[in-house]
Amino acid sequence: MAEHHYDLVVLGSGAAGEKGAAQAAYFGKRVAMVEKDYYLGGATAGTTVPSKTLRETAVTLSGVHARQLHGVDISLHGHVSVQDFLHHERVVKQTERQRVETNMERHKVDIFKGHGQFKDPHTIEVVAPGKEPEVLKADVVLITTGSRPRRPDNFPNDPRIYDSDTILQMKRMPKSMCVVGGGVIGCEYACIFSCLNVDVSLIHGRDILLDFLDRDISFGLRNCMEKLGVNLLMPKRLESVAAEKDGIRMTLQGGETILVEAVMLATGRQSNTDTINLDKAGVELGKYGLIKVNSDYQTNVEHIYAAGDVIGAPALASTGMEQARFAIMKAMKLPNYKNVVAPILPAGIYTIPECSSAGMTEEQCKEKKIPYVTGMAKYSQNARGMIIGDYDGFLKLVYNRDSMKLIGVHVIGEIASELVHLGLAAMTMGATNELFINTCFNYPTLGEMYKYATYDAMGKKAKLEKEAARGDLKE
Amino acid sequence: MAEHHYDLVVLGSGAAGEKGAAQAAYFGKRVAMVEKDYYLGGATAGTTVPSKTLRETAVTLSGVHARQLHGVDISLHGHVSVQDFLHHERVVKQTERQRVETNMERHKVDIFKGHGQFKDPHTIEVVAPGKEPEVLKADVVLITTGSRPRRPDNFPNDPRIYDSDTILQMKRMPKSMCVVGGGVIGCEYACIFSCLNVDVSLIHGRDILLDFLDRDISFGLRNCMEKLGVNLLMPKRLESVAAEKDGIRMTLQGGETILVEAVMLATGRQSNTDTINLDKAGVELGKYGLIKVNSDYQTNVEHIYAAGDVIGAPALASTGMEQARFAIMKAMKLPNYKNVVAPILPAGIYTIPECSSAGMTEEQCKEKKIPYVTGMAKYSQNARGMIIGDYDGFLKLVYNRDSMKLIGVHVIGEIASELVHLGLAAMTMGATNELFINTCFNYPTLGEMYKYATYDAMGKKAKLEKEAARGDLKE
Repeated sequence: MAEHHYDLVVLGSGAAGEKGAAQAAYFGKRVAMVEKDYYLGGATAGTTVPSKTLRETAVTLSGVHARQLHGVDISLHGHVSVQDFLHHERVVKQTERQRVETNMERHKVDIFKGHGQFKDPHTIEVVAPGKEPEVLKADVVLITTGSRPRRPDNFPNDPRIYDSDTILQMKRMPKSMCVVGGGVIGCEYACIFSCLNVDVSLIHGRDILLDFLDRDISFGLRNCMEKLGVNLLMPKRLESVAAEKDGIRMTLQGGETILVEAVMLATGRQSNTDTINLDKAGVELGKYGLIKVNSDYQTNVEHIYAAGDVIGAPALASTGMEQARFAIMKAMKLPNYKNVVAPILPAGIYTIPECSSAGMTEEQCKEKKIPYVTGMAKYSQNARGMIIGDYDGFLKLVYNRDSMKLIGVHVIGEIASELVHLGLAAMTMGATNELFINTCFNYPTLGEMYKYATYDAMGKKAKLEKEAARGDLKE
Repeated sequence: MAEHHYDLVVLGSGAAGEKGAAQAAYFGKRVAMVEKDYYLGGATAGTTVPSKTLRETAVTLSGVHARQLHGVDISLHGHVSVQDFLHHERVVKQTERQRVETNMERHKVDIFKGHGQFKDPHTIEVVAPGKEPEVLKADVVLITTGSRPRRPDNFPNDPRIYDSDTILQMKRMPKSMCVVGGGVIGCEYACIFSCLNVDVSLIHGRDILLDFLDRDISFGLRNCMEKLGVNLLMPKRLESVAAEKDGIRMTLQGGETILVEAVMLATGRQSNTDTINLDKAGVELGKYGLIKVNSDYQTNVEHIYAAGDVIGAPALASTGMEQARFAIMKAMKLPNYKNVVAPILPAGIYTIPECSSAGMTEEQCKEKKIPYVTGMAKYSQNARGMIIGDYDGFLKLVYNRDSMKLIGVHVIGEIASELVHLGLAAMTMGATNELFINTCFNYPTLGEMYKYATYDAMGKKAKLEKEAARGDLKE
């Protein structure tokens, strides 16, 4: 049995694993990576990037945009075939997996493909069919084994019932679909299929979509999804599911039923912590089988760290990478490099339209009694917004009313996930309204909205102060 | 003859005029605006926004993107008609003009439509056909009369020879076109028409396109324009032009000739300073008939200010707005508001792909002997870049090698004009590489490239330092 010694062994090759391994290797450490699948890239390359690619494909092939703006129809006539739909996704997935492979080669990270399990806190055995097991001895271990879709027990095994993994192996485009679960993944897929003229229903247990978002964004998204044709069944609970010859029959509490050609489960994900013999390493689990870590992303075992989906929320590729880099810095005691973990974590939601958010929502300000003032700017009032025909989007800024420091940024509309970065950087640097007032933005751009939302906030603040001076305001 | 007194009279209603007028009005000043055209909005609404709209239309209707990415053809078959091409432009232009109108109403700015001319430094007479002249007395005057296309003398008057104003009244789509002048407007229109399968040649007198850009961006653009099918004739000078029955014959120095169905002149613009009786106001002109102003945008006459194209380069809508706001602040002595003019002016170029730039180029650093290090990140190595299929784009950052402060940002690729804002804000706040290393970006986004370009710069710096320590580097 071959035995190898490494400074660092990384379990899993998704976004967190890749960045953790690359960082240690960059600083001259000997690194091994263990991956159970044939391809590197984990769920990041396997499902995250693909879902965002399908979104792009759906927006393009549906041709909705061209019809609305230019009065001409350049949609693919009839229904989009599943081949048309999945073509670009397959190319991108392959390229992304190859990119991870190349990145690991470039960093001289040794790859072990097979199932990795702890034998003891410093030893990992990698088993692959038809091959001699390999034993890796590690000074430091980084666990980034990710998560997989959670499938509730009451769903029958039927090929017409998909989750976010199996949906990518769809054989034909259904005429109707029921998405179960109104979280990020559920909302994203409901938008994609609705855009492609599939008759989509979304069952969501609460009365607010994505309730971690600022309410204005959440309501804005609900509005846009309804316009897109998504039948929002909320707040509703599912009573039972039956696979019938003509489709899947979904019965809601109260008796209402719908019959659909396909079901997409978006009922959460569970961490992959149950298959790596964590007990032999002595690593403790917390609620929902998540690995418990401290603020350095260190587990209860001194030399074992964990990052990404295995430690739970926010469970995004972006945060996983950040956590892994910081964990490696701490674990390897790397000098003068990345001494802080990103203070603000943005959320990017690839619905149609996109939503993105960083910092405090208006609701959080109220709850924490922080004096605030908000400012809004609409895409429809912005030259670039008019050009691209986004009439629903807006940018909402939240300022501390006393200091006029920016404390929250919320966007819904085209490229929202990109636009939010400007506010994110401004918050990181402690910027006030002055930054946007004194910045010359390109014209025409959506970025300009930061200036107008800031004017709006300043106008509201001035009005509030005037009212307060007049004694109209009683607090 | 009616006579009115105002705190401020603004001549011209383009971007600079609108923002100057709105700002003074916001602070309670009585403002009048004079506009010679039937519509408000000047060249900003009349030609800037339209040209960016045509770019968007061309990219969509050509369907190039869908064919490359999805393997399906959703282009408009055959040639795009001029109606298809101009439809959205007309809607957007009208909306933008209406927006300016509404903004002025909301700010209670009085509009005088007609030809405005100085009678004396404080008096402007507005003359409109069939109406009694009106006389405006002004404490402060802001001149924002803009510019118009410059037409060289050696071009015959022929309806097939367009400039950036008349191109919007095109009656049919030509099969071939020669764009004269490789400045921003020339490059933008060459890309638009080439994208629509028009056979486009571009005559440019120098050997580098847009030589104010960082060379890597300039070369990248040249590359992309050639891929798009633009026949770049550079460095070449035009010898003569002749209108023939079959088309316009363009003869280059050296004897080469091309025959094209249409010509688009992009041979610069001239300031509108010759029709407002500036001599009666005592305002001095500088080179090329531009109004001379000091750093407060004040002319030689104490109460007369000027902003936008009338004062010359950079002559962009974005900079005009910024100048006008600052000029008003100074002229009206507005307290505690916008005490500085934007320290860095970005350039946004709406070619296909877009280019954008802010701060120092690598060439400027060399010239000024500033120690620098650059970092690059490619769209093709970025998940979002792969999803949208942009394989040519890149982000180039320029850092001061000693302080690692960001001093330049250069982007070519999709939404370049938006992406540059993050670097612009970072530079405005004096950020170093730490900002991007410690920022968690949404995934997948193009914004993430700031992190990877920064890593690249840090790697290059470390390598340079290692070499210097080894004594390999002789400077």
